Amino acid sequence: MNLTVAPSLSRIHSLHCARCHTPYSPFELQSVSACCQQPLVADYDLHYPPTPAEAIDQADSSMWRYGALLPLLAEANKVTLGEGMTPLLQLPRLGSKYGFSALTLKDEGQNPTGSFKARGLSMAISKAKELGAQGCIIPTAGNAGVAMAAYCARGGLSATVVMPRHTPEAFKEECYWYGAQVELVDGLINDCAARVRQLNAGGELLDISTLKEPYRLEGKKTMGYEIAEQLGWQLPDVLLYPAGGGTGLIGIWKAFQEMKAMGWLAPETALPRMVAVQAENCRPLYDTYFGYQANSLNYNGRPTLANGLAVPRPLGEPLMLDVLRESQGTVVSISEEGMLEGMRELGQQEGLFVAPEGAAVWMAARQLLSTGWLRADERILLLNTGSGQKYMSNVAGRAWA
Amino acid sequence: MNLTVAPSLSRIHSLHCARCHTPYSPFELQSVSACCQQPLVADYDLHYPPTPAEAIDQADSSMWRYGALLPLLAEANKVTLGEGMTPLLQLPRLGSKYGFSALTLKDEGQNPTGSFKARGLSMAISKAKELGAQGCIIPTAGNAGVAMAAYCARGGLSATVVMPRHTPEAFKEECYWYGAQVELVDGLINDCAARVRQLNAGGELLDISTLKEPYRLEGKKTMGYEIAEQLGWQLPDVLLYPAGGGTGLIGIWKAFQEMKAMGWLAPETALPRMVAVQAENCRPLYDTYFGYQANSLNYNGRPTLANGLAVPRPLGEPLMLDVLRESQGTVVSISEEGMLEGMRELGQQEGLFVAPEGAAVWMAARQLLSTGWLRADERILLLNTGSGQKYMSNVAGRAWA
Repeated sequence: MNLTVAPSLSRIHSLHCARCHTPYSPFELQSVSACCQQPLVADYDLHYPPTPAEAIDQADSSMWRYGALLPLLAEANKVTLGEGMTPLLQLPRLGSKYGFSALTLKDEGQNPTGSFKARGLSMAISKAKELGAQGCIIPTAGNAGVAMAAYCARGGLSATVVMPRHTPEAFKEECYWYGAQVELVDGLINDCAARVRQLNAGGELLDISTLKEPYRLEGKKTMGYEIAEQLGWQLPDVLLYPAGGGTGLIGIWKAFQEMKAMGWLAPETALPRMVAVQAENCRPLYDTYFGYQANSLNYNGRPTLANGLAVPRPLGEPLMLDVLRESQGTVVSISEEGMLEGMRELGQQEGLFVAPEGAAVWMAARQLLSTGWLRADERILLLNTGSGQKYMSNVAGRAWA
Repeated sequence: MNLTVAPSLSRIHSLHCARCHTPYSPFELQSVSACCQQPLVADYDLHYPPTPAEAIDQADSSMWRYGALLPLLAEANKVTLGEGMTPLLQLPRLGSKYGFSALTLKDEGQNPTGSFKARGLSMAISKAKELGAQGCIIPTAGNAGVAMAAYCARGGLSATVVMPRHTPEAFKEECYWYGAQVELVDGLINDCAARVRQLNAGGELLDISTLKEPYRLEGKKTMGYEIAEQLGWQLPDVLLYPAGGGTGLIGIWKAFQEMKAMGWLAPETALPRMVAVQAENCRPLYDTYFGYQANSLNYNGRPTLANGLAVPRPLGEPLMLDVLRESQGTVVSISEEGMLEGMRELGQQEGLFVAPEGAAVWMAARQLLSTGWLRADERILLLNTGSGQKYMSNVAGRAWA
């Protein structure tokens, strides 16, 4: 442990159970809440809130610029590869093709390891190191495992990555280059989670599963802070996000709440309607939201080009549903063919080679425009969660319809 | 043309021939100098130099923050994907393994399209658009072609990319996703250049070959500005750079000269010794520098894992030699096996999956330490030019020795 190396700037003061609000300590390793087996959520002291100028380290071009609102206590424990502060890009050519007047995309593919997962794993592995863990284990659809392997190598922790056998080779290979142990499982991420429980029955390793430790969420929320800062403390009207495990959706919404509480948002700023985008092949949240099932506890999904969306039974479903209801959002699901069409359009029109997840988000915007749920003059923000690069073997030869 | 859209912040006032200094206009499309068939170099008005605070747009987290010292005249012509402001990372684990006390790496793999080429091509395509070009053509070892395809798509220009047939598939495929025309050639980049001359005999397309238009160099020089800004206007003692075409090496050195002229560097700041790193399979600069040949005009190289170093007859050789001599630098060449070893070390020790070019640079630092050319207590900066991702098919299965 290394809690006294440097004075902490972090305003974290506790964790709470997402269901019953029982408090937990942020100064020891935690998993889900002992009371309800639900995610733990970090709380910060926002009573005498800092201004952006006080809280943000302008010299830091990474997500760590928001250190006061992050859970790391000692600088020496930071495990970073420079994640965050990804660009917000206008999409003028696609916009004018479909009539959107204010279409933007945040490109998370420019993160270390090529995806938004870098944010959550940088934070989780930093905290794992700070709280004394020696090794970590994760069930993953792909990108999170690659990111965990990288940050564990960077921090000197061992890494065990459990992923579906059908995941494209590039995800597995990159883990090998980071020296991680990779375990392949027949099935989807929920089957990998079962294998993690088996491999880690003795609890020697820290389980970094989505929302089973409290800090990936804190890393992911930095997307919300960046969006607001990059827009001059305004927010878009609609934010479209590819939701698998949902940490990003939940985290961005948490950031908006924190900024609202601190008075950081420009006066009259309404929070955006949040749209969760899923794959037709695996759309548990869609089915629950539209009443086809009570919840996704027994949902069975199929593999999809968008690995990150192949999460049939997300632990964060209740929290995602809260975000959708509070924000008056909705859920959209996109076909495999639709994702390829979206990848082609983003590539050919805007020079962006995005992950199928990001392409699905763009196709969702088109769909919501055609149904009238979106207006063409609204300020639309698309979140592309990763680079198309690691998906290459699955999409090769499909650049033309 | 679109020169009057917005008042220009750029201080560019002319171009000059790198050999005889004859001036050329920066307000029309240019190739090499008509006088000497040599590269054209951009000049800025530095007589009443701005301070960093005046010149740098702190709200811009891309290379475009240095707009006053870049050649673009009108904001409306900017073709950007958010390139630049890549992280400068300390390498504490590798450092302590080998005894280096101040080892850092600038990770250009986090750029759009996964390499430092994004800088040069964002700049060149922006200027191509500003000066009225409709389409561009490029001979490439891989990464530059991918970047050109992306920025041409983004800017609405046509793209023709000519690359060696043996280039890994991922480079070709990514070009297809941007809608580029891809032409494959048996041979190396110089053979591709010959094919470009053939395909573009009528001159309909703008030739974006390394140093055959003046603006890729201006994009690349932003690495030099960033290094200085990120180090608080100090510079490292030694900078190691993988040199193929050499635009980056020349550009970084140009930035250092400009900053010196403007008084931006901290007092007593010496310029770094510049080390050009090449592949044993293709080391024209090495052979010239050490006197094995008068120049590389007839050099023949072989393919290497580090595609970007397979440039047997670089047009910029005289300019690179100037940099090496002025800076009291040197040249190192690294074997294919050495690059793989470097990739393993950077992956397993620091969580960085780098291009073979970046791995070569790390191995060069080790080699120069062992020969005594470097001291372990010097401030060493390694430049990794790209992500390992697109090289995956060529290195798969080699993560362990």
